[in-house]
Amino acid sequence: VCVCVCVCVRAGLLSQLSSHSSHARVCVSPVLVAQQRNNSTTPKVKVEFDQSTGVAVMHMQSPPVNSLSLDFLTEFCINVEKLEMDKSCRGLIITSSQPKVFSAGLDIMEMYGKSPERCGEFWRAVQEMWLKLYSSDMVTIAAINGSSPAGGCLMSLTCDYRIMADNPRYSIGLNETQLGIVAPFWFKDTMVNTVGHRTTELALELGLLYSPSEALKVGLVDLLVPEDEVLTTATKTMTKWLAIPDHARQITKSMMRKPTIDKLTSKREADIQNFVSFITKDSIQKSLRMYLEMLKKRRG
Amino acid sequence: VCVCVCVCVRAGLLSQLSSHSSHARVCVSPVLVAQQRNNSTTPKVKVEFDQSTGVAVMHMQSPPVNSLSLDFLTEFCINVEKLEMDKSCRGLIITSSQPKVFSAGLDIMEMYGKSPERCGEFWRAVQEMWLKLYSSDMVTIAAINGSSPAGGCLMSLTCDYRIMADNPRYSIGLNETQLGIVAPFWFKDTMVNTVGHRTTELALELGLLYSPSEALKVGLVDLLVPEDEVLTTATKTMTKWLAIPDHARQITKSMMRKPTIDKLTSKREADIQNFVSFITKDSIQKSLRMYLEMLKKRRG
Amino acid sequence: VCVCVCVCVRAGLLSQLSSHSSHARVCVSPVLVAQQRNNSTTPKVKVEFDQSTGVAVMHMQSPPVNSLSLDFLTEFCINVEKLEMDKSCRGLIITSSQPKVFSAGLDIMEMYGKSPERCGEFWRAVQEMWLKLYSSDMVTIAAINGSSPAGGCLMSLTCDYRIMADNPRYSIGLNETQLGIVAPFWFKDTMVNTVGHRTTELALELGLLYSPSEALKVGLVDLLVPEDEVLTTATKTMTKWLAIPDHARQITKSMMRKPTIDKLTSKREADIQNFVSFITKDSIQKSLRMYLEMLKKRRG
Repeated sequence: VCVCVCVCVRAGLLSQLSSHSSHARVCVSPVLVAQQRNNSTTPKVKVEFDQSTGVAVMHMQSPPVNSLSLDFLTEFCINVEKLEMDKSCRGLIITSSQPKVFSAGLDIMEMYGKSPERCGEFWRAVQEMWLKLYSSDMVTIAAINGSSPAGGCLMSLTCDYRIMADNPRYSIGLNETQLGIVAPFWFKDTMVNTVGHRTTELALELGLLYSPSEALKVGLVDLLVPEDEVLTTATKTMTKWLAIPDHARQITKSMMRKPTIDKLTSKREADIQNFVSFITKDSIQKSLRMYLEMLKKRRG
Repeated sequence: VCVCVCVCVRAGLLSQLSSHSSHARVCVSPVLVAQQRNNSTTPKVKVEFDQSTGVAVMHMQSPPVNSLSLDFLTEFCINVEKLEMDKSCRGLIITSSQPKVFSAGLDIMEMYGKSPERCGEFWRAVQEMWLKLYSSDMVTIAAINGSSPAGGCLMSLTCDYRIMADNPRYSIGLNETQLGIVAPFWFKDTMVNTVGHRTTELALELGLLYSPSEALKVGLVDLLVPEDEVLTTATKTMTKWLAIPDHARQITKSMMRKPTIDKLTSKREADIQNFVSFITKDSIQKSLRMYLEMLKKRRG
Repeated sequence: VCVCVCVCVRAGLLSQLSSHSSHARVCVSPVLVAQQRNNSTTPKVKVEFDQSTGVAVMHMQSPPVNSLSLDFLTEFCINVEKLEMDKSCRGLIITSSQPKVFSAGLDIMEMYGKSPERCGEFWRAVQEMWLKLYSSDMVTIAAINGSSPAGGCLMSLTCDYRIMADNPRYSIGLNETQLGIVAPFWFKDTMVNTVGHRTTELALELGLLYSPSEALKVGLVDLLVPEDEVLTTATKTMTKWLAIPDHARQITKSMMRKPTIDKLTSKREADIQNFVSFITKDSIQKSLRMYLEMLKKRRG
């Protein structure tokens, strides 16, 4: 949520945001009933699937900062679903083709000045991304080769393993609170499952962004490696995971995660209503406008 | 519970306990329907509120060791409630004016030789203190400038952040078990939320008191500073917390803590009954009498 | 489950497994209605009870690797129950008389080629061992003087405190997944209660076996000591635990563990059905057969 700026301020990417407001945005069906293909000219996600290893690498390549827009999420989910249904695909590595950023998180433009219907559609797509990844039967590894705030952090947290570039200029965390937005309960649940209750409380109350070494210390990521070794290390790690019998691993994963997944599934519509009524409030819209104006001034 | 002695034995404060049994104890209405003011001559709590920063500092000043008696709790809760209702107050720092002790915890004299009604009244006040602090919309910081056993530890655990004096003679922990008393489920829940299940199990089964460095290691406190910097560090830390948008922080805090709060709220009367029937048992009263006699002998 | 091999491969004990398939196996009544005594000539468990201290030491002495067979579990549970009912017994230390192994876990021979009824009887005995130990009123300390995979690890996890030999050749962990079997929910719950959600997720998905130093780091054990000091340290530690008032400690222990125990108690029959239908599947039986054949070849 609105996290591009956090990334930018830290990583000096402000200039890259210039194209942000002129994003080509296309009208797509809601992700759950997606029948039309995303008609962007360039795919926002590039999938390389190696039949010999059973491992797919998903490169996020949506300039400038892999913001999670509705069309990005739609395309992302379609690709995950395809791999999920392909029984020859056993492992998925998620990484970024954009420099310095894994993903900047939810696209603020999807939340500003949009109709309640459109906001709801967007939120359903965010839920869908989380549901698909958190419950995936594939081994999922996040190869975090850049900053990963808010929704980018959430995406990482859904994976079975997180490898991050050991670059102190990068950061990761659910920093929504800093921007006046609240991480919903399932973001919170995912973080509690990963780093425990107290670290989550502190992180979410303060909207903390962690440096890679801090993130490793609290358990938000599992391994730090030099920046140019993130993907190769992910591939090596995947080999170790794929040595485990799939069926037993999948049942085990489901046992660990099912209560958290069931909680969102059973409250999904209420969670959408909650998001829509929060985000369309005058006060929140005003905050977002001021935020966007500040961005413009900084760029100007 | 009965923890003064633990404090004293460790911190050499036994002599200060001489006034203990001669405490002026006044009859006050139960805290929930408190309409009369505490008629002690000296306030047990001193509040300094800085309008310019929105931060209140509450100094506990009930000699000798800030025991949590019924009148202390009543006065404490009235003050917290006043600040809570004052929209200009955004942050609360809790600290002690007594040397070497933050708070020695529940006052044993409230549990020995008292009627069931009075015991129930007392316990309701303990619950009320916890409920008010754990659900506070204010940023709450414990500036722990002395030992903080049992109820004193509980009070610290309700805060958003804990800063402790780095003095190895001080200790902190829920040590009730050592004295034959059991920490109730909501003490336990609060500790589990802070340090996790296993550390809590070990700490509560053994009634562990931690040195400041041990407490930092297990996550019972967040920061250690030299003794004379506890309050100034708390003030600086508060400034950082107040930079976070209040509304988002408050919703986040509530999301983290609501299940734990709801649990006590829904079982409040049963918890009182449970405490009263336990504490008024002949065997427990006998333990308390022997304990008090041991105290007298030590002082004699 | 099937974990002997893991132990063996690591600790070079393969030769000791030669007697495995020729185990004298006797027909005993199910553990819950056990009326007949185990009629093995040599007891699988030796209990030394010191009346003066109130501490019993239970030596597991079932060659070669203290596998948890139905008759072992029956004898083990009868002994625990006797001690539990003896009010003069306040503490229980569990250790192994076998070299290099604490316990190799569930006996694979109980799961291969057995009738559903017999499998169900076996699983009920595994549940009973866990229920008795996890809910024991005694102070329980695991003196882990050898490797402790799968069911051996589970047994350790039920104790109040775990002391392990600091020998890097030993390992401990719930490694079922590596063998294509799934740790059931109450194994998982016990581990989550000990090391938290994320460490458990990683450990169970990968079937991790930890070295002693790794186990200490994640909190799977509480203390490492030289191999010849494991039992003496357990005895000294027990003295400290017995200084705590029994009644308060027992209520506290129950408060921490009751939800986890109630969960299995209420789902006990379903859990048995689930195990039986899983383990008697053709595919699983085939895995077990291949596994046993591999064992034979290695020995051959």
